[in-house]
Amino acid sequence: MIKAGEYVLLYHSDRIKFLVSVQENGSFSTHRGNIDFRQITGKEYGDWVETQYGTRFYLLKPTLADLALKVKRTTTIVYPKDAGYMLLQTMIFPGARVIEVGSGSGALTAVLASFVRPHGRVYSYERRPEFSANAVDNIRRYKLDDVCEFFVADPVEQGFQQTDVDAVFLDVPEPWALVRAARQALKSGYPLAGLVPTFEQLRRFTSALSAEGFIRIRAREILERGYYLRETGIRPVDRMVAHTVFLVFAHKANIRNEQE
Amino acid sequence: MIKAGEYVLLYHSDRIKFLVSVQENGSFSTHRGNIDFRQITGKEYGDWVETQYGTRFYLLKPTLADLALKVKRTTTIVYPKDAGYMLLQTMIFPGARVIEVGSGSGALTAVLASFVRPHGRVYSYERRPEFSANAVDNIRRYKLDDVCEFFVADPVEQGFQQTDVDAVFLDVPEPWALVRAARQALKSGYPLAGLVPTFEQLRRFTSALSAEGFIRIRAREILERGYYLRETGIRPVDRMVAHTVFLVFAHKANIRNEQE
Amino acid sequence: MIKAGEYVLLYHSDRIKFLVSVQENGSFSTHRGNIDFRQITGKEYGDWVETQYGTRFYLLKPTLADLALKVKRTTTIVYPKDAGYMLLQTMIFPGARVIEVGSGSGALTAVLASFVRPHGRVYSYERRPEFSANAVDNIRRYKLDDVCEFFVADPVEQGFQQTDVDAVFLDVPEPWALVRAARQALKSGYPLAGLVPTFEQLRRFTSALSAEGFIRIRAREILERGYYLRETGIRPVDRMVAHTVFLVFAHKANIRNEQE
Amino acid sequence: MIKAGEYVLLYHSDRIKFLVSVQENGSFSTHRGNIDFRQITGKEYGDWVETQYGTRFYLLKPTLADLALKVKRTTTIVYPKDAGYMLLQTMIFPGARVIEVGSGSGALTAVLASFVRPHGRVYSYERRPEFSANAVDNIRRYKLDDVCEFFVADPVEQGFQQTDVDAVFLDVPEPWALVRAARQALKSGYPLAGLVPTFEQLRRFTSALSAEGFIRIRAREILERGYYLRETGIRPVDRMVAHTVFLVFAHKANIRNEQE
Repeated sequence: MIKAGEYVLLYHSDRIKFLVSVQENGSFSTHRGNIDFRQITGKEYGDWVETQYGTRFYLLKPTLADLALKVKRTTTIVYPKDAGYMLLQTMIFPGARVIEVGSGSGALTAVLASFVRPHGRVYSYERRPEFSANAVDNIRRYKLDDVCEFFVADPVEQGFQQTDVDAVFLDVPEPWALVRAARQALKSGYPLAGLVPTFEQLRRFTSALSAEGFIRIRAREILERGYYLRETGIRPVDRMVAHTVFLVFAHKANIRNEQE
Repeated sequence: MIKAGEYVLLYHSDRIKFLVSVQENGSFSTHRGNIDFRQITGKEYGDWVETQYGTRFYLLKPTLADLALKVKRTTTIVYPKDAGYMLLQTMIFPGARVIEVGSGSGALTAVLASFVRPHGRVYSYERRPEFSANAVDNIRRYKLDDVCEFFVADPVEQGFQQTDVDAVFLDVPEPWALVRAARQALKSGYPLAGLVPTFEQLRRFTSALSAEGFIRIRAREILERGYYLRETGIRPVDRMVAHTVFLVFAHKANIRNEQE
Repeated sequence: MIKAGEYVLLYHSDRIKFLVSVQENGSFSTHRGNIDFRQITGKEYGDWVETQYGTRFYLLKPTLADLALKVKRTTTIVYPKDAGYMLLQTMIFPGARVIEVGSGSGALTAVLASFVRPHGRVYSYERRPEFSANAVDNIRRYKLDDVCEFFVADPVEQGFQQTDVDAVFLDVPEPWALVRAARQALKSGYPLAGLVPTFEQLRRFTSALSAEGFIRIRAREILERGYYLRETGIRPVDRMVAHTVFLVFAHKANIRNEQE
Repeated sequence: MIKAGEYVLLYHSDRIKFLVSVQENGSFSTHRGNIDFRQITGKEYGDWVETQYGTRFYLLKPTLADLALKVKRTTTIVYPKDAGYMLLQTMIFPGARVIEVGSGSGALTAVLASFVRPHGRVYSYERRPEFSANAVDNIRRYKLDDVCEFFVADPVEQGFQQTDVDAVFLDVPEPWALVRAARQALKSGYPLAGLVPTFEQLRRFTSALSAEGFIRIRAREILERGYYLRETGIRPVDRMVAHTVFLVFAHKANIRNEQE
């Protein structure tokens, strides 16, 4: 039974759907009419409700991808296609302790928090206070704040407060400036991940990783292609998101002293 | 400190790397020479060892992608690009209870088990006993068997023994035959995922989902592009895995009675 | 020296550019101001002109891709990425005689006409008179009408008037209905090309080709990825045309009698 | 009727096919047995012949893509997907005069020659004599040498001997060194094309184009995806050529003097 405080995906179609936080009172407005929250509470997931104009919305359990894509955005967000791939190429597991820079809008934070629960920890750094505040807000609304700690700080200058973490995620314009600090925080033999949109960044970031004793340095790009499933025929969608970021992965090796 | 019983990725280069289960005694043979296990135990992750011919291997912590790609295979396996995406589009979280058909080689089982830990459950069905045995073996070696239950059964005829599960994964040639059973096992409003390689299967599977009261039926394809990071220049790799499967997602809705 | 009657590409940027037919008098209006045609005539290609608001437009020689993309459209058009690939997989050469169904907006007609010149022939069939009229108009304005013949006819019923052609192009919703007629018109051992957007069409079309004695039946998809070349960094464009059509190629073989 | 001196595609399947130059006498050997040339002469395209072991080969008219892919290679070749796209983005037409550097194995030369016929001209420069000799040989065997002129020269130092050409193609490792020479040879307002495999080359090449008064500078990548058309189902091929080159296009503008 759905209760106030839960998130529900109001689903009419792939184009008309809304992620809503159910309240005790009041209503949710759409261009297809309103849904009174008391229509929702007491119903089960999978049930449907209708607006006054007869538009039907199903009450679906939001997936993690729904939550990540619908955070209140102050920045570009990490896409599910990229977040999912990073989960498998780094050391994320229930109980993991991981660092993330920057917090951005909290989309990646939410994904990481969901999978380190209940005993893990996400340490999320962000130097712009207003971005951090928004990320904190998003994480709180998703009730993931029990495993997240936010820092308004610039780790380029101050480094990280944690050591022996299982993974480090760098989603900043100049990740090369953080490679040394990441190295100090990361467990030896464990992986780091970075996200950069341009080739110039890719070159500079991977060069820094190599210079700072990281090995197994790899760059990947994940593309997501949708398909129309129409009665008249199946075919790939006409237009797609063609590029988000290049994903970079590397493992910390104990070779730094030799090089110095 | 690395101990016997742990898995280590012996990494020389992206082409020369091995996932090994460290033993008390004996050695691991490569075409570049041998590594005595006593060279490994006592070392830290991130350290390196050398064969008698001087080839250096780093001792890296294997990622989940490494484990998934290196299961002992009796079938085609689920790729990290696909597994990672499915994690976010279905309800996988620490504590989740999920059904998987078929067990295959256990690659997807291992991914799911890693993320439902420590209190969740993966119910893995497989009708071919020899495949199930191999999957059980792989999961045991990865020490993930505490959260997995294997069933040698054909759920097309017998259905599933579980109800109210958070997610169902169908990785079989004829997933349409399992849609009704999946519906009975799945929580209302929650998502199911399927993997099919051809368009004919995609058509038949999505038609069955629609007929059985699933909504938000979507098909996606995930492509992974690698990049060469050479001193002489960055460029996409020459050849790539161009297709594995189409991923299908759908949510169970409470609309079946109306249709009947 | 540019003269009235020529086509010029007025180029300001990749987003602001216009294909214009230069006239003796009058002017061309843009949202950035007007260009008087007398500013253009007498100039050379590569020169530039300015609107009254100071927006500069370069006078570039339009490429065939520019012409094809800028036909006056009544239908979806064939993209340069697809047209260019088809040129190499079929028998198009100066002097070739080729059949096309349907004429559409004349985009593919223009490409084919350009390459069979000066002694070849494009026979373009279209059953909808208003589409044919528009295609005729486009081809005339591009001054390619000397090598084109248009037919308002439905070749499903009447077949083609030509025989021994070097290539046949089928760009219609039900190309399978034209396979037999195409076979009769085509030189033995020579290739046919078809364009279909969905998988159901692909299946039905290729089955018909196989049944009618075509061999070397192949399906291809051509994807075009653009790159931003910014000072701040090179990266793939954010959004792209993700699907136009599947291209089908097949060669006519002399095996039909055996099968009957 | 097929005669000695013609090229025929002996086609058994997409994997077993051969481009052969038919001779008066002798035979062609395959791992499936031999074909005596006298089996071929006198037959029609579309007919078939059999080896002594009963393997059937169809006699197909080779397409331009077949010729381009099957040149005797001394270098990497230009793929049909790229060559076809370039035809439409540059000024290639019957009668065009175009410059190409380097000749490579003559694959692109063959494509260009086929479409400038009968009155056009391909001026093909190559500084390595052995490569040029091989390209000359390939073009002669394809009987395209009537419209081609080969130069063993390094145009970086000597420039081009032609002026007012309709298009310039640069397929060399350092195309930036040829931009000035290309500019001198090219008609004003007309396009140039270049092919580079890495991002570093893309950056340097496009910067040089910009510095030398070229505008409308664009980078594109063309991807070709094949599909299996099996009875059991249609699906994308497992593995594909994932990258050949980035294609660069730019138009010569009359803005150079201003900048100097």
